[in-house]
Amino acid sequence: MEQDYQIFKLGDWELQSGEKIPDAHLAYKTFGDPKSPAIVYPTWFSGAIADNVWLVGKDKALNPREFFIIITALFGNGQSSSPSNQKQIESEPVPFPKCSFYDNVRAQYTLVTQHLGITHLRAVIGWSMGAAQTFQWATQYPDFMDLAIPFCGSAKTSVHNQVFLEGVKSALLAAKKTVSAGSGLIGLSKTGETVRVWSAEEKELGLKAFGRAYAGWGFSQAFYREKLYETVLGYKDLEDFMQNFWEKWACSKEPENLLVMLQTWQNGDVSLQGPYNGDFEKAIASITAKTLVLPCKTDLYFP
Amino acid sequence: MEQDYQIFKLGDWELQSGEKIPDAHLAYKTFGDPKSPAIVYPTWFSGAIADNVWLVGKDKALNPREFFIIITALFGNGQSSSPSNQKQIESEPVPFPKCSFYDNVRAQYTLVTQHLGITHLRAVIGWSMGAAQTFQWATQYPDFMDLAIPFCGSAKTSVHNQVFLEGVKSALLAAKKTVSAGSGLIGLSKTGETVRVWSAEEKELGLKAFGRAYAGWGFSQAFYREKLYETVLGYKDLEDFMQNFWEKWACSKEPENLLVMLQTWQNGDVSLQGPYNGDFEKAIASITAKTLVLPCKTDLYFP
Repeated sequence: MEQDYQIFKLGDWELQSGEKIPDAHLAYKTFGDPKSPAIVYPTWFSGAIADNVWLVGKDKALNPREFFIIITALFGNGQSSSPSNQKQIESEPVPFPKCSFYDNVRAQYTLVTQHLGITHLRAVIGWSMGAAQTFQWATQYPDFMDLAIPFCGSAKTSVHNQVFLEGVKSALLAAKKTVSAGSGLIGLSKTGETVRVWSAEEKELGLKAFGRAYAGWGFSQAFYREKLYETVLGYKDLEDFMQNFWEKWACSKEPENLLVMLQTWQNGDVSLQGPYNGDFEKAIASITAKTLVLPCKTDLYFP
Repeated sequence: MEQDYQIFKLGDWELQSGEKIPDAHLAYKTFGDPKSPAIVYPTWFSGAIADNVWLVGKDKALNPREFFIIITALFGNGQSSSPSNQKQIESEPVPFPKCSFYDNVRAQYTLVTQHLGITHLRAVIGWSMGAAQTFQWATQYPDFMDLAIPFCGSAKTSVHNQVFLEGVKSALLAAKKTVSAGSGLIGLSKTGETVRVWSAEEKELGLKAFGRAYAGWGFSQAFYREKLYETVLGYKDLEDFMQNFWEKWACSKEPENLLVMLQTWQNGDVSLQGPYNGDFEKAIASITAKTLVLPCKTDLYFP
């Protein structure tokens, strides 16, 4: 398959945890003229660079005739450094380390400043985990952008959000005969574990369970009540939607990649970086960019 | 262990699906004088008869000095007929059939009328799946009770509720190398499957994943936001709560028992019985009992 994005080499990339990603890289794609005002638009949980493109176009919010748009990929998304593309010495495989939003955004900043030569951004914008990265950008490099537009995401992953993620993670790991444990919950911890190798059967079982377990969290009560999976999305019934939307989505991913991104998400908190030292209000108060925080809305789908 | 409840033999119990539970029985326990006004108080998902007793006592809502209280156990709870107590012919094991709320309540009605000789109930009351059985009683035998008090439960399992159950079911089944499929979703279907035999390892893995996957659904966002698992329930942190509340709860159950009750829950709908023929409003309009529908409230825990 032709690779429809660029690679920026980061070298051995040191992480907040003290671990590092050896020979790391960031995947990204740009649209428009590099001399236009620049916008960073990071990917979401499980999303590929191409999944962000729906918002880019001459009749879209992100117009390449007006802006230089840079889509960056999360560590673990399969395009940036991820378990699925990590080079291993066969005799001594090493688990992929845990990455924070800080680690991701520092890599994106390095790309933007050192490689693309940009000194200021017009905006950072993102959905879901992309929104979390937007909050991270605005607190990590407060003077670097005019606007921050996080939509449907948070500056600190709520406990309930951590718990829902713990549930879908447990469903995935059950197929790999692994009991989920708290390493992903609250605070970065050393990886320590051995490398998990998934058989085709384990992968299929785990990913299908992951997809079905995600189904209740991925859409709202109203979405299901109104049966929008039938009337808007065109599935025959609920089971058709389970199989051909949720299982299909999950089975297009790699278990270990999902686990890396999931761990980043569970531990999201803009106060967990140098100047704020756990003080969330202080971290939020540091934002100088004009910020538009947007929710998701099911009723946009209604006629 | 001494058995602290009674058994009522139902014989081969014919089900709505056309299948039957061979040599079925209902477990129940009574409190108070059989001549007092009678109250039926069915168990909830995964609950044992003893788990209902917190509401029974001379200073409680259900006072045995005033009422004859009958706690009935759901099919699949491990006390009434369940996979865990089903007698099998070893050479030809048969899967436990799927049971509806109708099937459960018809058995309870048979106990109450034929064995206990009761001709009218003062009330039916229940929590969660107990509330669903309360709605079922009030539509299945509308003239049989004065009062119906369902708390924190529904007369028809919403699609979103079905989907959340599908998720926790998938987590459990992943450990048994089984992909969940739509048989439990919408409508009773023939069991068809072979009997699943769980190894100790599969059981532990599956139940722990089930418990963790349930954690996000079992308590509210507010419960987690306020960290009531620490301040009210006394757990050290979130991981302590995951292990010593959720995994412990799940590991005290039998996988196949949970799956029977879960299937009953997923298919809950008071309109799926003779006179209503799928007309939910007609079913609800048939209720003549004075009915008090109560929600759950997290803020009851606040000081």
